[in-house]
Amino acid sequence: MRVRAVVAYDGTDYRGFQRQADGPTVQGVLEKALFQVTQTPTTTLAAGRTDAGVHAEGQVIAFDTAWRHPLADLERALNAVLPPDVAVRGVELAASNFHPRYAAKSRLYRYSVYNASTRSPLIRRTSWHVAETLDLGAMNRAAEYLAGEHDFASFGTPPQGTVTIRRVLGAVWRKDPPWFFFDIEANAFLYRMVRSIVGTLLQVGRGELNPERVGELLAMRDRTCVKYMAPAHGLCLIQVRF
Amino acid sequence: MRVRAVVAYDGTDYRGFQRQADGPTVQGVLEKALFQVTQTPTTTLAAGRTDAGVHAEGQVIAFDTAWRHPLADLERALNAVLPPDVAVRGVELAASNFHPRYAAKSRLYRYSVYNASTRSPLIRRTSWHVAETLDLGAMNRAAEYLAGEHDFASFGTPPQGTVTIRRVLGAVWRKDPPWFFFDIEANAFLYRMVRSIVGTLLQVGRGELNPERVGELLAMRDRTCVKYMAPAHGLCLIQVRF
Repeated sequence: MRVRAVVAYDGTDYRGFQRQADGPTVQGVLEKALFQVTQTPTTTLAAGRTDAGVHAEGQVIAFDTAWRHPLADLERALNAVLPPDVAVRGVELAASNFHPRYAAKSRLYRYSVYNASTRSPLIRRTSWHVAETLDLGAMNRAAEYLAGEHDFASFGTPPQGTVTIRRVLGAVWRKDPPWFFFDIEANAFLYRMVRSIVGTLLQVGRGELNPERVGELLAMRDRTCVKYMAPAHGLCLIQVRF
Repeated sequence: MRVRAVVAYDGTDYRGFQRQADGPTVQGVLEKALFQVTQTPTTTLAAGRTDAGVHAEGQVIAFDTAWRHPLADLERALNAVLPPDVAVRGVELAASNFHPRYAAKSRLYRYSVYNASTRSPLIRRTSWHVAETLDLGAMNRAAEYLAGEHDFASFGTPPQGTVTIRRVLGAVWRKDPPWFFFDIEANAFLYRMVRSIVGTLLQVGRGELNPERVGELLAMRDRTCVKYMAPAHGLCLIQVRF
């Protein structure tokens, strides 16, 4: 049977979600935990491949298993063997052909900026410390250029294939001092797309770029024209919508 | 001249605030940073000695220095050499006899409980995960016994001397799902006092103890009668008032 689950993780110590030859990955520890619990090699499918250092509250995975006990027991067993920086919740039965990547209608990411003169140790792993004054209005005027269907080639590279067109359903900054939060939802994202957008919008927030410049950068469709990328540790995959 | 500063730290990787022979301490890294920046061995005084693993947003320290540049430069220089899990802010001139421990009128600690069925990786370092349903009303009725001046011998041991009387100015639980926050302010605290109180109040919250039992435990003045202690990582020294 196919099972789905929501996965949360602190990406600090991982080389990203996707399994790779060397270095710890979230997919690697999930599949190791599944093997420990079910005694069967298990491959996981996921809705989004987060970069090294990026976090998740609401990653969605699916896998096939012959588990014969209640799924709540599988959830408990997995959380018991997973490391403290990865947890699963909402383990439930899925359609046999459910694939989180293809079934997902959209992904919502949040970027957290801690805007204060001094860095704050207790939130350092999950936010970007920016000391300069930021202009919320300018950042939101710039973000408006992103909404809708566009070719985002300037802001990232496609994880597979060559198509760089994506549909942004919403992109807005919210200020809650000392925090700035940027929520961006799209049907899908290019590699590094959110971090490149945040890096550019912070140039706008600092007054280094006019908001209109973001529309021009978008129209250029040239990856080399966007130079700044926000660090991975401020980014979190909040929710996948189906 | 004597200088004061507010210190924030993630206590996860420290053996507490106070310098000791072996193992990293917050005082140790602060004094090392002061030596790197000022080239002079410097001893720091602090308002509260937090236990191993306990965090701070608002620890207050003081030290003597011959620094001849603006104090904002000292703050920047210290933050540049301090590790990412410790930071100083509000570095300013103090009276030459200012001692944060003796000058402090009260300390405010916050204990954070993450109350959900599944643990959450992103907040695991700064909160205690409790899966059971908790009764906010019962915990607050129990907390009322703590307010005022009492002999807290059942809940801790004195850091120096033998006096176990402390004056609690406020002790209240606040629920903000999935969070429970416990704020407790007192003129001073015994060792392990907040964690022993939180451990006992959570027994009340789970229905294992009646709220009235907290009054009885207080009256016993016997350290051996309080058995449960909440873990260090949910506790944070929020503010010192002078």
